Amino acid sequence: MIYADNAATTKLDEDALNAMLPFLRENYGNASQSYSFSRSSRKALKEARETIASCINATPEQILFTSCGTESDNWVIKGVALSKSVDWKIATSCIEHHAVLRPCKWLENKGYNVKYLSVDSDGVVEDYSLDGINLASIMFANNEIGTLQPIKRVCEKAHASGALFHTDAVQAVGHLEIDVHDLDVDFLSASAHKFNGPKGIGFLYAKKTSELPSFMNGGGQEFGFRAGTENVASIVGMAVALKKNYDQIEKNKKHLFHLENILITQLNQGDVEFIRNGSQNHIPGNVSLSFKNQDGEALQHRLDFEGICVSTGSACDSRNVQISHVLKAIGLSKDFAEGTIRISLGKENTELEVNQIADSIIKIFKSQSY
Amino acid sequence: MIYADNAATTKLDEDALNAMLPFLRENYGNASQSYSFSRSSRKALKEARETIASCINATPEQILFTSCGTESDNWVIKGVALSKSVDWKIATSCIEHHAVLRPCKWLENKGYNVKYLSVDSDGVVEDYSLDGINLASIMFANNEIGTLQPIKRVCEKAHASGALFHTDAVQAVGHLEIDVHDLDVDFLSASAHKFNGPKGIGFLYAKKTSELPSFMNGGGQEFGFRAGTENVASIVGMAVALKKNYDQIEKNKKHLFHLENILITQLNQGDVEFIRNGSQNHIPGNVSLSFKNQDGEALQHRLDFEGICVSTGSACDSRNVQISHVLKAIGLSKDFAEGTIRISLGKENTELEVNQIADSIIKIFKSQSY
Repeated sequence: MIYADNAATTKLDEDALNAMLPFLRENYGNASQSYSFSRSSRKALKEARETIASCINATPEQILFTSCGTESDNWVIKGVALSKSVDWKIATSCIEHHAVLRPCKWLENKGYNVKYLSVDSDGVVEDYSLDGINLASIMFANNEIGTLQPIKRVCEKAHASGALFHTDAVQAVGHLEIDVHDLDVDFLSASAHKFNGPKGIGFLYAKKTSELPSFMNGGGQEFGFRAGTENVASIVGMAVALKKNYDQIEKNKKHLFHLENILITQLNQGDVEFIRNGSQNHIPGNVSLSFKNQDGEALQHRLDFEGICVSTGSACDSRNVQISHVLKAIGLSKDFAEGTIRISLGKENTELEVNQIADSIIKIFKSQSY
Repeated sequence: MIYADNAATTKLDEDALNAMLPFLRENYGNASQSYSFSRSSRKALKEARETIASCINATPEQILFTSCGTESDNWVIKGVALSKSVDWKIATSCIEHHAVLRPCKWLENKGYNVKYLSVDSDGVVEDYSLDGINLASIMFANNEIGTLQPIKRVCEKAHASGALFHTDAVQAVGHLEIDVHDLDVDFLSASAHKFNGPKGIGFLYAKKTSELPSFMNGGGQEFGFRAGTENVASIVGMAVALKKNYDQIEKNKKHLFHLENILITQLNQGDVEFIRNGSQNHIPGNVSLSFKNQDGEALQHRLDFEGICVSTGSACDSRNVQISHVLKAIGLSKDFAEGTIRISLGKENTELEVNQIADSIIKIFKSQSY
């Protein structure tokens, strides 16, 4: 099996799993309890928070654990807006993940005003007119086509307009250097299973937690900002996975760009007509390809027969036969858009695997039966 | 170490962990992807949903996975209310967990009207006047004193008043037989780590999902009702733990009531002045004791020195030196309330351990140094 769907989810790092196991076995104490037995849970929680903070140049109290990137996004967008009146205005891009777009739609249904910023054919937001906007939410890297936005510059623009700035960095954290202090973002969302951590855990960075109302109310966990018994094992696994990715980030990036080049070169040599979507400035390993007059879903299934896992769109919507909102937004023509697959390579993929992916695609298109 | 804080969290069942491991190792595919590699994740998710449904006599599509009991509670209370106008009225009891009370307070701050029902000295809701109420949320079993509410009867009253009915059953699921069809509740919250499942996973039962708006918006997971990549490993662990508990529920209950009796008998013989809080009709293993003119926190620490883990209040608020809202609500006098500990026994506790807990308490009170 060749796994090339790392933008959907990644394999849990073995060191991360090994770090989790004691908290799934003997160290099961509730981290909020004061007795000695819970000391190892409390300590692990504290250290994981410090590790994660140091990976993105934050302070530990700016890191709030959540159950996933979707929760982090919902927390900021719905949570902050609901703490304000309905004349609070939000801006976002039209190529955000549904975890941002749908909370925005939800707010629109409640009477809030949301401005959707358009993107160019590379998927880069064209015009940052943020006058009168109170919260801007722009993704760091697009999950379908990999395009990076100039987050530092956009954040400056947002602040110049008096807006808070959030970035859904679910695809970027662990894959690109992120310095929240330098970027100056107010909020940043991340999800562990996108960077070889476990599923069901994520975090929200908040520059000033005073700007952040609670979304899940209850017990006093996470400095009173996010209730719910702490998922110590998964938090520990997330921290180990993140640190490991950052410890070898240059190597990983270089490896992934190298693999991308092999893939594209091979396909070009294979006499296959395709467009590569997204910007040159993209997340390492994300290769969105649109083949003319083909059926992306059929291609995915054919590759599956060959033991190759790729996506046809964003993971969450892969059963949806409609052309994705991202491909529409970049203006891709229907004859190409319908034949789109996303190959998202990870640090464990090899040259041999990438050659096999290219060979399989070429073989499928050349076969009479297709 | 004697662990007697099972109402705070429980030890993850070994079979549950073993069932989780393949999904933390080789079977890491995103359950929402259609390729063959994700088949085992999809299948496991489906089977876990069926298992959990069968444990409480629900149908699989009525089970929606969440990240914890707190999320399940917030979803129903905030989610449903926010989908209605502010003249929507909520009723709850004054001894609910903060995961219910704080969402209610949050709604009050938004202009909603919340009625708090008082309880008698056993912690049983006294008067179910639900006229004009749209949603009643009454806990199945209290986390501090163990008292059970007559949920079926209260639910009938709620329905007779035209209200939807939710029960926070976090302390009850896996410890008492629950038949949602017979109870006829509209919504029920549960948390895996309270019944020997992993932390960071729970579920919400919804009789008719059509009555339930989304709380976390994004991808189409959980039939479109709860976005976020499925935490397959933890869901599988939750199902195994729940089924195992239900497979031996009579045995577990009998064992726990037997242990409680030993504890109380020993303490009575030890010439210690105490009140046992809560109703005769209580969750198995929950023993809330109030010692006259004592300091519950000091007692907890002394027991900790002896290697015994107990709680002074609800787990989430154990660092809070105030008398808990539950002890206040049952009208416990200050001289007893301040000397309260909660011993919550689990299926793995033994007679020997319970004898040691009683001996330690008696020894502590008899020691001159105390």
